[in-house]
Amino acid sequence: MEKTSTDAFPFTMNSSEKQETVCIFGTGDFGRSLALKMLQCGYSIVFGSRNPQKSSLLPNGAEVLSYSEAARKSDIIIIAVHREHYGFLTELTEVLKGKTLVDISNNLKINQYPESNAEYLAQLVPGAHVVKAFNTISAWALQSGALDANRQVFVCGNDSKAKQRVMDIVRTLGLTPLDQGSLMAAKEIENYPLQLFPMWKFPFYLSAFLCVFFFFYCVIRDIIYPYVNGGKDRTFRMAISIPNRVFPIAALTLLALVYLPGVIAAILQLYRGTKYRRFPDWLDHWMLCRKQLGLVALGFASLHVLYTLVIPIRYYVRWTIKNRTITQATAKREDPFSTSTAWLSDSYVALGILGFFLFVLLGITSLPSVSNTVNWREFRFVQSKLGYLTLILCTAHTMVYGGKRFLSPSSLIWYLPSAYVIALIIPCIVLVIKFVLVLPCIDKTLTRIRQGWERNAKPTLNGERYLKQSSVHLDSEL
Amino acid sequence: MEKTSTDAFPFTMNSSEKQETVCIFGTGDFGRSLALKMLQCGYSIVFGSRNPQKSSLLPNGAEVLSYSEAARKSDIIIIAVHREHYGFLTELTEVLKGKTLVDISNNLKINQYPESNAEYLAQLVPGAHVVKAFNTISAWALQSGALDANRQVFVCGNDSKAKQRVMDIVRTLGLTPLDQGSLMAAKEIENYPLQLFPMWKFPFYLSAFLCVFFFFYCVIRDIIYPYVNGGKDRTFRMAISIPNRVFPIAALTLLALVYLPGVIAAILQLYRGTKYRRFPDWLDHWMLCRKQLGLVALGFASLHVLYTLVIPIRYYVRWTIKNRTITQATAKREDPFSTSTAWLSDSYVALGILGFFLFVLLGITSLPSVSNTVNWREFRFVQSKLGYLTLILCTAHTMVYGGKRFLSPSSLIWYLPSAYVIALIIPCIVLVIKFVLVLPCIDKTLTRIRQGWERNAKPTLNGERYLKQSSVHLDSEL
Amino acid sequence: MEKTSTDAFPFTMNSSEKQETVCIFGTGDFGRSLALKMLQCGYSIVFGSRNPQKSSLLPNGAEVLSYSEAARKSDIIIIAVHREHYGFLTELTEVLKGKTLVDISNNLKINQYPESNAEYLAQLVPGAHVVKAFNTISAWALQSGALDANRQVFVCGNDSKAKQRVMDIVRTLGLTPLDQGSLMAAKEIENYPLQLFPMWKFPFYLSAFLCVFFFFYCVIRDIIYPYVNGGKDRTFRMAISIPNRVFPIAALTLLALVYLPGVIAAILQLYRGTKYRRFPDWLDHWMLCRKQLGLVALGFASLHVLYTLVIPIRYYVRWTIKNRTITQATAKREDPFSTSTAWLSDSYVALGILGFFLFVLLGITSLPSVSNTVNWREFRFVQSKLGYLTLILCTAHTMVYGGKRFLSPSSLIWYLPSAYVIALIIPCIVLVIKFVLVLPCIDKTLTRIRQGWERNAKPTLNGERYLKQSSVHLDSEL
Repeated sequence: MEKTSTDAFPFTMNSSEKQETVCIFGTGDFGRSLALKMLQCGYSIVFGSRNPQKSSLLPNGAEVLSYSEAARKSDIIIIAVHREHYGFLTELTEVLKGKTLVDISNNLKINQYPESNAEYLAQLVPGAHVVKAFNTISAWALQSGALDANRQVFVCGNDSKAKQRVMDIVRTLGLTPLDQGSLMAAKEIENYPLQLFPMWKFPFYLSAFLCVFFFFYCVIRDIIYPYVNGGKDRTFRMAISIPNRVFPIAALTLLALVYLPGVIAAILQLYRGTKYRRFPDWLDHWMLCRKQLGLVALGFASLHVLYTLVIPIRYYVRWTIKNRTITQATAKREDPFSTSTAWLSDSYVALGILGFFLFVLLGITSLPSVSNTVNWREFRFVQSKLGYLTLILCTAHTMVYGGKRFLSPSSLIWYLPSAYVIALIIPCIVLVIKFVLVLPCIDKTLTRIRQGWERNAKPTLNGERYLKQSSVHLDSEL
Repeated sequence: MEKTSTDAFPFTMNSSEKQETVCIFGTGDFGRSLALKMLQCGYSIVFGSRNPQKSSLLPNGAEVLSYSEAARKSDIIIIAVHREHYGFLTELTEVLKGKTLVDISNNLKINQYPESNAEYLAQLVPGAHVVKAFNTISAWALQSGALDANRQVFVCGNDSKAKQRVMDIVRTLGLTPLDQGSLMAAKEIENYPLQLFPMWKFPFYLSAFLCVFFFFYCVIRDIIYPYVNGGKDRTFRMAISIPNRVFPIAALTLLALVYLPGVIAAILQLYRGTKYRRFPDWLDHWMLCRKQLGLVALGFASLHVLYTLVIPIRYYVRWTIKNRTITQATAKREDPFSTSTAWLSDSYVALGILGFFLFVLLGITSLPSVSNTVNWREFRFVQSKLGYLTLILCTAHTMVYGGKRFLSPSSLIWYLPSAYVIALIIPCIVLVIKFVLVLPCIDKTLTRIRQGWERNAKPTLNGERYLKQSSVHLDSEL
Repeated sequence: MEKTSTDAFPFTMNSSEKQETVCIFGTGDFGRSLALKMLQCGYSIVFGSRNPQKSSLLPNGAEVLSYSEAARKSDIIIIAVHREHYGFLTELTEVLKGKTLVDISNNLKINQYPESNAEYLAQLVPGAHVVKAFNTISAWALQSGALDANRQVFVCGNDSKAKQRVMDIVRTLGLTPLDQGSLMAAKEIENYPLQLFPMWKFPFYLSAFLCVFFFFYCVIRDIIYPYVNGGKDRTFRMAISIPNRVFPIAALTLLALVYLPGVIAAILQLYRGTKYRRFPDWLDHWMLCRKQLGLVALGFASLHVLYTLVIPIRYYVRWTIKNRTITQATAKREDPFSTSTAWLSDSYVALGILGFFLFVLLGITSLPSVSNTVNWREFRFVQSKLGYLTLILCTAHTMVYGGKRFLSPSSLIWYLPSAYVIALIIPCIVLVIKFVLVLPCIDKTLTRIRQGWERNAKPTLNGERYLKQSSVHLDSEL
């Protein structure tokens, strides 16, 4: 066995200092990949295995020993074994005393066990320093060095010296360690790779509900009604016409819902007279997923744009225009040109284009690499000022779409108003409240509250409270 | 008070080494947020306060003492107090001797004070090592750990050991420290969070001027002229027709202005016979905001695309086509098909699409995360080669748009040529000069100059100068 | 000469510790830029030069000495000299013993020399520790501190202590060091800045071939055939009509080729009964450039969308519609409305829009900064599940495009089927095989193989092998 170790020497002949030796318990896929990568980065590797003789497929230059022999060779031991097999470690308590154990395990389900694997390991081997790391990295990413994969390694542990050494290893492997604090964070770190877009769940279900509701609403008005009152087959409208009503409605509603929690928070702060009380949980959660709501809205808006631009290609539209032209040509009658209709039609389209353009700008600035290059003042300017401008343009676009028949009773079908009228309710509420909030008298009070002033507090003499107030102001308004 | 401190111990029971203690002067919003984050990352926190008894809302596990008592507990003291309140620190000069003071303050305006807050602090407490840090981070970002926010922390200071320790803290908090050199950089660091897109100002004002100028130019030709010569009301053109002339003109002009400074720089270098002389300031500034100019141009080009694609949906266009068809049908007359018009129309559109496609590609590669994954040769290939190809395609698109009436005197209105003819001036100048510059004889001289050759210099015997010449060549041409 | 050095002192007066001194051999452009940046970051710089007296343009605060004198002043020596001039270093072997030499050189061509410059340097000066670094950074990027440029510095070397010191310098300069292992990696690091999109070569040539082939295929069917059988001049179709057939075909074929290697790999694994055997090289390479293939396909799909949306603007289309309308109006005949045609036309368009929308989503998630924020489970969900959904939608879009005349013999021209029929071959093959692979019985075997099970292996008793199996499963299916 010792022979295997000497194979590695040519690799490191020039090295003036003793290489650091790392021990890995377990010779599975991930243990082997990690060993290979660490060997390439100049570490010496000792595997600990139940059956040192039977282990195969190990990378060149790595030594295989029994668990206790391997553990004696290094201060850092990576536990590449499933949690269910941790039992054998209790027998090694003496050898592992004072050593750093790196827990890299994952579970199959979120919150599978009452405590995290790393905390369980710390209980089993009380004398060792347990550090959680590497669980978010895949074996394949280690082998191929793919830059695409997530290169962040979450690290946590109670012993900061042990944690620091593990973070140094992470850095040497070309990955980015992120210190997550004490071992209490292990549960969250273990749940992370099992998550499937947790922040997108609420926006997804909300938009699915909006789509289904408005789809059936439009089916009633546009397909069932003409069928009942005239027996016309309009089912083909389900492919494009109706989606092209549902998508803009969903987009506008979701965009308004991005800004609604902000105005609710402002009203709450005004009512309470302080910013030092927590918002209710539903409001907190809502505010945290505003970015996702906005991006879903942008998706719907993009679909609306594409569905609108294909209108002149559609057979139904071409057929309608052609037949209307033929009818008029046969009757030798020309429509007079209506300047007001031209104005309405053109400004409807122009408002939509400008709104969509700003919306795409908002989307681009929410890309992580773009938002990393702007400071808070710029981020707030884009997300708040441009955001409200987008909302105003899109609301105006929808209103002008209604044009002359907006709110006219003749557009009611079975007492149901047009779908776009319903879509306008939330945006208009948000814009009206926002308009009230920016009135000088109210805005002044709100600004004072956000700068730390409390309506029912004794005045503070201390200048400290006001430090960083402007940033807080920015943020709370986002 | 000591009791508060012991509360923190359970947190760190397993730690084998003494935790690092950090002192924070000031119990304001940001001081508290920083303390909470540092506690979570394993630091011990001591607050220094004017009224230790009265401080409230402090995170669990932090101790509150008087300023001098707190300062004695730690080598690193974070000054979370407004600059106006720095006065009390002069009384502590003795205690603070040799300690690291971290200045985290911001101002309300750019260049509010003659010297930066950090330099002012260094003058007040001459025996201490002042390090500027954390001012670009908001309290909210520290609390929520939002990855979206800018996670870069600019750090500067005269004492490199003190700076290193602060950078270690920054790294432990999961943020990215960026060493900005000596304390002289503090002014710039303090101005950074107050900036609002400084690099975008010139492109913004320039494009605003272009838009306003060409808008009124088109209003004269397309609205006022038909009203004066025939009393026709064409005002509705202001919504779509005229913007759809202004936007492409602005896009093409700005795109040409991206490449104009490069050819001016080449002419200057040829004229001077050396690359070792600074360009005039206006040229330097222009070259630094080329990316922003290009992105604004891309914005206008995108708007032009959207405005063009909605053409067949517009009421005015539909009405015109219908009426022309009816007139011809009534007269029983069919237009003959013109192959040359089909060629012109189709190649005009195809050139526009290909130009826009390459333009979008350029925009995507200028995203920070994309440009980080390419090397210099690739970056230059995209930004220079593809950039010029885009300019050529877009210029050709505009020329073919003119088609048969390009430069014909009949398109003059009140002696004013069509707007697109004016838009072609700068792109054509750039392309002609560039064409001259890539002629072998001139290109050879230019390449030699960019490789370090000087027309009036004695020949150097030293090979060193030529190292890295190719990179320089690349850059100066970008 | 010593005087120059003292000039630097005011800069660092406040420093409590001795600054680190770095020596730079060579006073060329890059050496000077590096020196300037290092001076700004607090280092002391000594230049080594052949002619210390004649060196000019050096940054303030740097000392210039002869090579051997300079080398004695520092442990770290940066070799800013071309490889051809390395010869003089052999005379300094004694002085350089045990020191760290940083090779920053680049070549003019890939694989210009049999061994890398850094390995050549290590042979010349056997007693020194050679570290390769900084070669990917340009002088211009160091001077301007442009965030846009690639800030990653690849570092490799056999001595890990020397490498660590160089990486510390890199970090201090505000750049990101990436440890690439031993000096054997130097060749790859030196080739890196000379590469021009190596991963894009195969996708580029493949798509060029597809475009040329289908272009001529369509020219035969759409231009030569009508010319031969009727003498019609249809050449103008080359500008838009034919590209708008070629681009979607290329997009669909390339998209299918993204998923073909995955199903081939699955078949190979099923046939071999193990995942522990390497795939053939061509398959490995193919799998590595799937992202590039997908992005090129997205480019073609975007062009197809633009070319399609401009259809109603084209002169040819407007002329055709107008004349058909006039003919019918003259004949006083109206087409009856066909619901089935409306359904086909609308679902064709809707499928295309939805497919394109998902395709763009896939493209956005492949942006480095976006894919960095998702975990492996999410990345796989998007790239595999959404990817196949995109392929299904786009294949269905193409099939419905054929509509009633799909596979009908009347659409054969000179025995050639329509181009879109050929485009459907590969996607249909991929989808059929994938459908077979997800059948429960086959999927179960495949999953077991990907979890480490081997058909011909003795059962393992060891739980270790199964660790991280799920990640591997994810990856191999990507």
